[in-house]
Amino acid sequence: MSRQSNRSTDTKKMNSELFTLTYGALVTQLCKDYENDEEVNKQLEKMGYNIGVRLIEDFLARSSVGRCQDFRETADVIAKVAFKMYLGITPSVTNWSPAGDEFSLILESNPLVDFVELPDNHSTLIYSNLLCGVLRGALEMVQMAVDVRFAQDTLRGDNVTEIRMKFIKRIEENLPAGDE
Amino acid sequence: MSRQSNRSTDTKKMNSELFTLTYGALVTQLCKDYENDEEVNKQLEKMGYNIGVRLIEDFLARSSVGRCQDFRETADVIAKVAFKMYLGITPSVTNWSPAGDEFSLILESNPLVDFVELPDNHSTLIYSNLLCGVLRGALEMVQMAVDVRFAQDTLRGDNVTEIRMKFIKRIEENLPAGDE
Repeated sequence: MSRQSNRSTDTKKMNSELFTLTYGALVTQLCKDYENDEEVNKQLEKMGYNIGVRLIEDFLARSSVGRCQDFRETADVIAKVAFKMYLGITPSVTNWSPAGDEFSLILESNPLVDFVELPDNHSTLIYSNLLCGVLRGALEMVQMAVDVRFAQDTLRGDNVTEIRMKFIKRIEENLPAGDE
Repeated sequence: MSRQSNRSTDTKKMNSELFTLTYGALVTQLCKDYENDEEVNKQLEKMGYNIGVRLIEDFLARSSVGRCQDFRETADVIAKVAFKMYLGITPSVTNWSPAGDEFSLILESNPLVDFVELPDNHSTLIYSNLLCGVLRGALEMVQMAVDVRFAQDTLRGDNVTEIRMKFIKRIEENLPAGDE
């Protein structure tokens, strides 16, 4: 589906439950479509990437956030502005690597999994992997190549949900980017 | 995915754009999976039904809305409470049939289609058909059989989006209902 040029820019605030259940329908459909969890995880990440590539423009327009000076500022903007805006939560930023090129987002609650329990036969499913793709896609559009993955997940029995982000490199401005 | 019994009941307010783009990914996936628009429309309605069957409990818990006295009150609750809560919009209720068993919800804007243009080869796609299913499923759980369909759609060139709802019958309380 292509983007409408004259789409509205007003903000609609909504509760997260319809989104949560719709996301569940998407994951369930992918579990029907693909043979194993690994393929579903990959597909969710790819869909997220394509969403992030589009969402970043909306984010920059709404947030009036300028270019970040360093990866620490990027981390703060992601946690305090982006997550708050699109998921209604504010993860904490922690576990910085000594070199300052890696950190974790700790989500005390994850709206995507509010109604969810993983069935036994999907023990390797990374249910919320779309989020990793969204972050990777959005950051790529502001010239940052970042590796994003789940390090812990309450759905899989961990106490918190932890998204680990590792800065890879700055991307040359003149390279074209787009749907994968 | 089954429902978690101890899910949180606090409300997370979020902007609609991530939901909109995720819904787009779901529709795109279904267009890949099914042969024609008719099948996709049917699938979206069925997914929506299964969502509505679950969402109603959340809705009743949050809204503290009691049993509606008549279909007019139902219409008002759907428009002013439910749509506002889960989509951040308030459709107008109009075009009542003389018998009072049919009305229309007019959506001046539809958050589901904010980034969307229908490709030429999907001219019969009822893109937002999930919503019809959600309404049908939720109402069935409060003992109302209702026919729900899109009568107009801005995506298909109409000036507004119109959801037409027709009361069919009251369902006996002791009939079991569940996933389709």
